[in-house]
Amino acid sequence: MLNKLKETVTGPPLPTHQMMSNRLNKIRALAAFSPDALSSIAYANQEIYLGLVVAGSAGLSLAWPIGLAITTLLVLLAISYYQTIQGYPSGGGSFIVAKENLGIVPGVVAAAALLIDYLLTAAVSLTAGMDAIASAFPSLQPYKVAMALGILLIITVINLRGIQESGTAMAIPVYLFLITYISMIGYGVIVALRQGPGPLHVFAPAATLPVSLFLVLHTFSSGCTALTGIEAISNGTPAFRPPEARNAGKTLIVMAVLMGLLFVGSIGLTQYLAVIARPDETILSAFAHRLLGNSAGYYLIQASTTLILAVAANTSFAGFPRLTAIMAREGFLPRPLSNLGDRLVFNNGILMLAGGTAALIVFFGGDTHALIPLFAVGVFLAFTLSQTGMVVHWWSKKGHGWGVKAVANGVGALATCITLLIVCVSKFTQGAWIIVVLIPILVAIFLRIHHHFKQVSAQLSMSGHPPSLNPGPPPRVVVPISGVHRGIVGAINFARSISPDVTAFYIELEPGAAERVKNDWQRWWPDVPLIIRPSPYRSIITPLLDFLDETDQEHHDGQQAVVVLPEFIPAHWWQSLLHNQASLMIKTARLYHRRQKGFQRVMIDVPYHLKK
Amino acid sequence: MLNKLKETVTGPPLPTHQMMSNRLNKIRALAAFSPDALSSIAYANQEIYLGLVVAGSAGLSLAWPIGLAITTLLVLLAISYYQTIQGYPSGGGSFIVAKENLGIVPGVVAAAALLIDYLLTAAVSLTAGMDAIASAFPSLQPYKVAMALGILLIITVINLRGIQESGTAMAIPVYLFLITYISMIGYGVIVALRQGPGPLHVFAPAATLPVSLFLVLHTFSSGCTALTGIEAISNGTPAFRPPEARNAGKTLIVMAVLMGLLFVGSIGLTQYLAVIARPDETILSAFAHRLLGNSAGYYLIQASTTLILAVAANTSFAGFPRLTAIMAREGFLPRPLSNLGDRLVFNNGILMLAGGTAALIVFFGGDTHALIPLFAVGVFLAFTLSQTGMVVHWWSKKGHGWGVKAVANGVGALATCITLLIVCVSKFTQGAWIIVVLIPILVAIFLRIHHHFKQVSAQLSMSGHPPSLNPGPPPRVVVPISGVHRGIVGAINFARSISPDVTAFYIELEPGAAERVKNDWQRWWPDVPLIIRPSPYRSIITPLLDFLDETDQEHHDGQQAVVVLPEFIPAHWWQSLLHNQASLMIKTARLYHRRQKGFQRVMIDVPYHLKK
Repeated sequence: MLNKLKETVTGPPLPTHQMMSNRLNKIRALAAFSPDALSSIAYANQEIYLGLVVAGSAGLSLAWPIGLAITTLLVLLAISYYQTIQGYPSGGGSFIVAKENLGIVPGVVAAAALLIDYLLTAAVSLTAGMDAIASAFPSLQPYKVAMALGILLIITVINLRGIQESGTAMAIPVYLFLITYISMIGYGVIVALRQGPGPLHVFAPAATLPVSLFLVLHTFSSGCTALTGIEAISNGTPAFRPPEARNAGKTLIVMAVLMGLLFVGSIGLTQYLAVIARPDETILSAFAHRLLGNSAGYYLIQASTTLILAVAANTSFAGFPRLTAIMAREGFLPRPLSNLGDRLVFNNGILMLAGGTAALIVFFGGDTHALIPLFAVGVFLAFTLSQTGMVVHWWSKKGHGWGVKAVANGVGALATCITLLIVCVSKFTQGAWIIVVLIPILVAIFLRIHHHFKQVSAQLSMSGHPPSLNPGPPPRVVVPISGVHRGIVGAINFARSISPDVTAFYIELEPGAAERVKNDWQRWWPDVPLIIRPSPYRSIITPLLDFLDETDQEHHDGQQAVVVLPEFIPAHWWQSLLHNQASLMIKTARLYHRRQKGFQRVMIDVPYHLKK
Repeated sequence: MLNKLKETVTGPPLPTHQMMSNRLNKIRALAAFSPDALSSIAYANQEIYLGLVVAGSAGLSLAWPIGLAITTLLVLLAISYYQTIQGYPSGGGSFIVAKENLGIVPGVVAAAALLIDYLLTAAVSLTAGMDAIASAFPSLQPYKVAMALGILLIITVINLRGIQESGTAMAIPVYLFLITYISMIGYGVIVALRQGPGPLHVFAPAATLPVSLFLVLHTFSSGCTALTGIEAISNGTPAFRPPEARNAGKTLIVMAVLMGLLFVGSIGLTQYLAVIARPDETILSAFAHRLLGNSAGYYLIQASTTLILAVAANTSFAGFPRLTAIMAREGFLPRPLSNLGDRLVFNNGILMLAGGTAALIVFFGGDTHALIPLFAVGVFLAFTLSQTGMVVHWWSKKGHGWGVKAVANGVGALATCITLLIVCVSKFTQGAWIIVVLIPILVAIFLRIHHHFKQVSAQLSMSGHPPSLNPGPPPRVVVPISGVHRGIVGAINFARSISPDVTAFYIELEPGAAERVKNDWQRWWPDVPLIIRPSPYRSIITPLLDFLDETDQEHHDGQQAVVVLPEFIPAHWWQSLLHNQASLMIKTARLYHRRQKGFQRVMIDVPYHLKK
């Protein structure tokens, strides 16, 4: 029944050989990997606006230069990641690049940073999407958390069904967003040319803080969230149709150009037209309002913003499970994260991401502005490690034109490193500290897991001093019985079929019961010895274990007696509730005390099935 | 750790031979079995008052005659149960008496009625206790449910520790109650003699309903709850010190006299002195107020009322687990209810009662008046069946003076039967219908369970066509392996020690992996055949089961192959989370699909313990 429910939600299982056919063409890949990057303008513009508006019109006039600085970073990152795709066509996430070129510790640091960012991308995209819709319909403000969780659930289910289907479902909103925003910005340019610049000093609220270097750097840090998601394509190169690297590279260039266009266009026009937002409205909503009024066009813009942000959360669902699978395969995370599910996706990673995102949304009450300070640290840490790794990569390979490539990545590394420092300092007390604390903890966990897997593989290795491959003599067998009845016949027969040395063992719980059992036993199995022990405290486990230990010691042959447990299985599950399940108790106690003396021996349960 | 917590709460385990020494002397037995009966006046008086006050002073003047009618019933019941104790010194609960003399169905009907009443006794006593304390401290009104649950928890723990300890803990409140109430009634008689009757028609609220036959019968029904608990001693005779029947009989007489004294005294004085209660106050509280004013004496009375009612819930904890244990031993309830716990009490019954009582209190919001209509049906049903059974008992035995005894019980049976009819009719729509519906359902369940146990015992019997006791040839053994490593060595060695016919079985999950496994296998175990199967859908369970079925069919020897599962056990529990636990998955699937083809065979897991 559980299996049926699962199939209804995720669809029927797929065979492994269909794996290859689930690749993405460029149109679908852009839809699957770019929404985070493209949609970042929704919260990045908002954060820049919120960062500057406290300094009044003097502050807001800095939006354009800060936007240009971020766009410069965008160009450097696009070049860097284009090179990464070419250098690592099999999937060059920051984890792989940093680990291969800089070593294990930088690698897992990058991985920790990336995992956190995938989570935050999903959370921030969903909450920002709800901000967009609540800007258009302020009465929905109180339901933001519930709506975000609902959309998260839908995205999770779609991803559990498999990536190609997610490509289809996500493509429409992405292209709708591109068309509506490019049209709006085009129209905005016409309006700007006709009307000339707006009087910013007239509309802007009065300054409550002076313009300071800290204010500028702080705003720059927040605005850098516009760059999140740019690395997704390089991490997901193997999901492209062959030739993977070429298709991925082209898609990256298209994505970077679109990102720059939307970001520069929207931020430039907002400032030029002197747009100011209401307190419960996003600046993008105010911008659209300024251009389109209360027309259907305005609502279409808000809808497409919400939709692409919902879809942006999907970027994480493409990246996070893939990264955890790679890490699991290399022994930094639990193995089950690397298992392909029935639908050829990494179910466990998808569920882990969904759970973490839901927790973040609930914990931060769906407040985008509160989540943002946690965001940029991880992003730029991963960027820096990845770019530095690429420098080492080109340097050590010394292939065609390696010098230019190394310099390009070096510039990227330097720029992202500086940004990282700015972000850490300017956002530390607002939440960045959480990430600064969390990353070392995650790194320690990853390394501990890795250490365990290395130890296991050493312990499992057949090389070196080889184990004895000689089977011993037939084991001594002990069969605990609850009385003489048909339920124990199968167990006794089985015990005698595997060994000539069989002993039955009876625990007397009620005084006097043993006598009858002894007589019955003599009647049916006179040639099998029966041992009877009292149990003053009415326990069945302790006397059994004591007897087993005693008999092992008596025989001092270095062997452990094997237990054959007769177990009767009722015809219907509810009937199990009616019986004292001694064998179940023994098995449960064993599972629980697995690592304790006495429970380590082999236990064989032989079922006797009741018919009715 | 769980074990330690359990020992802290309930104390260390006791050996079975201490069972006898945990018997009760008469002083303690009175404390353990009488509180329900004695404390009933708290809610019975209250219900009589609430039933009559709607008819104003004309109504309230009927309290005294109704009280006398109930006292007459009390005398009849005391005589009846005194005889039951003599007839059934080994414990003559209504269940035993009805079953032995009237047959199985009347027996389980009585049992169902009694179980319901034990639950209601506990629930009503606790809520009425909270009414008493909230009468003295009205600010505690909103916390009645929480306080009742807290006291329920304390009683449960005390009972889990063992009955003698509960006797000690409960004796003080019982004797405190007797002393304070008898003193108060004595003082009340003096006051009444001095002051003469109070002007009831002056103080009583105006009548909203006329005095009618229905009103009188309805009030009589409610008042009959004063008789609950009178049967507890006859049910618990074996808990007395020897000679059990004599001691129990004496205790019953003392208890009945005390019950009558308190009931008649309080109800008579209340009417004589024209006591009227505030809406948030019980009539007993108003009575004490009238006599003692706001003195310390008044608060002592309220405290002792609350205490004995709390202790009254304990009557159920003495009776309910004992009855469920008897029923379980006779196969009408699940066997685990008959297990003596570490402290020689029936833990499972205690926990079941505690859970049910808590549910009742919460569901009815701690409202005594809402619970009362459910109460009397079961009580008088059990009384009637038990008395009728005693008539048949004396009749069939025809011992010394059987005629008088039969008539005495016959009168009891008739009186309780008439009361039962009155209760059912007058309370039907107020909640009695729940019990009228519930009892047949419970009876059906008991009979279904009984049927199952009879079937099981027939299926387990060695008599009749006896099973084959000849062990077969050594089993065919299949060892599923996940690769060639030390983790499988123990399993292969074990398999070969129990049978010469061993086959290893490998499932290829990733294309190409089989080749290496094949080569390694040849190196270490060239003489053991290895079967390799692909798994296109990446399942490990389906291919294994398919292979086992195939090989069973191929061999058509009527035998099932046995599976030896290599299982590696990590050194620490958390490490288990890091691995794909194939053998655990197989075992879990087996537990879940126990009754399905393929999972019925014997599976042996051979652990390999990792050291670090």
